[in-house]
Amino acid sequence: MSSTHDNAPIGVFDSGVGGLTVAREIMRQLPDESLIYFGDTARVPYGTKSKDTVIRYSRQIVNFLLSKNVKAIVVACNTASALAMSKLQKEYIVPMIGMVRPGAIAATRATKNQHIGIIGTNATIKSGQYGRYLRELNPEVTVVTKACPMFVPLVEEGLIDDRITEDMVSRYLREFDQYHIDSLILGCTHYPLLQNPIKNFVGETVTLINPAYETAKSLKELLKERKIAAESGHAAEYEYYVSDMEDQFLTFADRVLPCHVENVQPIDIEKY
Amino acid sequence: MSSTHDNAPIGVFDSGVGGLTVAREIMRQLPDESLIYFGDTARVPYGTKSKDTVIRYSRQIVNFLLSKNVKAIVVACNTASALAMSKLQKEYIVPMIGMVRPGAIAATRATKNQHIGIIGTNATIKSGQYGRYLRELNPEVTVVTKACPMFVPLVEEGLIDDRITEDMVSRYLREFDQYHIDSLILGCTHYPLLQNPIKNFVGETVTLINPAYETAKSLKELLKERKIAAESGHAAEYEYYVSDMEDQFLTFADRVLPCHVENVQPIDIEKY
Repeated sequence: MSSTHDNAPIGVFDSGVGGLTVAREIMRQLPDESLIYFGDTARVPYGTKSKDTVIRYSRQIVNFLLSKNVKAIVVACNTASALAMSKLQKEYIVPMIGMVRPGAIAATRATKNQHIGIIGTNATIKSGQYGRYLRELNPEVTVVTKACPMFVPLVEEGLIDDRITEDMVSRYLREFDQYHIDSLILGCTHYPLLQNPIKNFVGETVTLINPAYETAKSLKELLKERKIAAESGHAAEYEYYVSDMEDQFLTFADRVLPCHVENVQPIDIEKY
Repeated sequence: MSSTHDNAPIGVFDSGVGGLTVAREIMRQLPDESLIYFGDTARVPYGTKSKDTVIRYSRQIVNFLLSKNVKAIVVACNTASALAMSKLQKEYIVPMIGMVRPGAIAATRATKNQHIGIIGTNATIKSGQYGRYLRELNPEVTVVTKACPMFVPLVEEGLIDDRITEDMVSRYLREFDQYHIDSLILGCTHYPLLQNPIKNFVGETVTLINPAYETAKSLKELLKERKIAAESGHAAEYEYYVSDMEDQFLTFADRVLPCHVENVQPIDIEKY
């Protein structure tokens, strides 16, 4: 291995299975990188928890991932990115990337009228973290936010193309009407799965921003900068760990990921 | 204190705030008894978790309640009652009462045609525990079950009298039509809050069974049998503990309980 490369795996974690959509994007954009995925399926969801609890849970997961010798960590959960990442970055030297900053960058790039909408869990919206990054990138931006707590249960119940989901989408998003946003950040890993009903409601003039794509791109830049990208042609290996419900994880992973997932290992995350 | 009384508190626990409806029923029927309530608001919900995880979490809570010197424990959560209680009863000598057996007794008493419906979380329904108790009480009974995973999020979003909730009620419960049930067990502490839309859908011929009332009644009998009821006129004291989100707990408790709740204490339940 040359001194400008590192074939160690990247740690990716989420409160549950939603972060697999981020893992998928990393697999596509960085095919040489090995991944260790952890989904906190025992303690999901994070979006209804307090900041202190999300920090404590995220810290346990970072400790677990470090025990697997990861070279970088992707916080593939908007809530953990918004509530815990800045704290964890002060506690650990391992490089970390969250969803919020890359999502904000993508929205700043997409908007023409500087009116940006953000939807997410209660905790993510309450944190105001997306707004802070957006205003840092462009102090002139108008930010409109809305928590959509029913979206995750609807996705998990499989009610994607359903009149109930259309009804909830219209209730949550009609508040944006008066603000004339032209970009909408899907600030929760489950929300891109509701892209169709959201698109139908907001119309073609609003660009939907999925932070996953931009997160993988930022990761690529970070690995290059720090000279820790895997060697070209390195045979990537993927490992999956969860805190509960292995079978459900496998079913979801097989639907989302480009590769077949044969094995997932249960972890008692409270020990880390 | 006479030797046939014990003024020590009763421990009551739930995955979150729903168990307060059971605490309320105990306060009404057993006004002399002190209570220690614990709501696992950090790790709620239990209804989507595996049996092993629900057992592990329940064990930590029992350990915490025992550190408060409770004389008996009420498992005021249908999922924990169905998945963890029989295991915990083998591990601990403290008397325990769950929701499932009292709920089954109440349904057996209410039904005339011996066709009983049960609704609950995925985990409660999958466990088959209500059915086992019902058939133990009456081997001739016909049991029809349906998991209703959207009901808890709908209640927590405050969508009680809402067309979306009516729509979900009708989707979940129309399967009961062909079975001619005359009693329906509301097998999750949140469900009695949806009593109106459920009643509207199933009609007057179906009796809705709320296990909370029967659980408090069974507790009363247990305390009497074991000679550990509080002395008549004992000044009951109530203490509340949660693993997260104290403010939300106080708001909900004030709405549900007959007394004003001034104080709730956060606990790191993973340490027990």
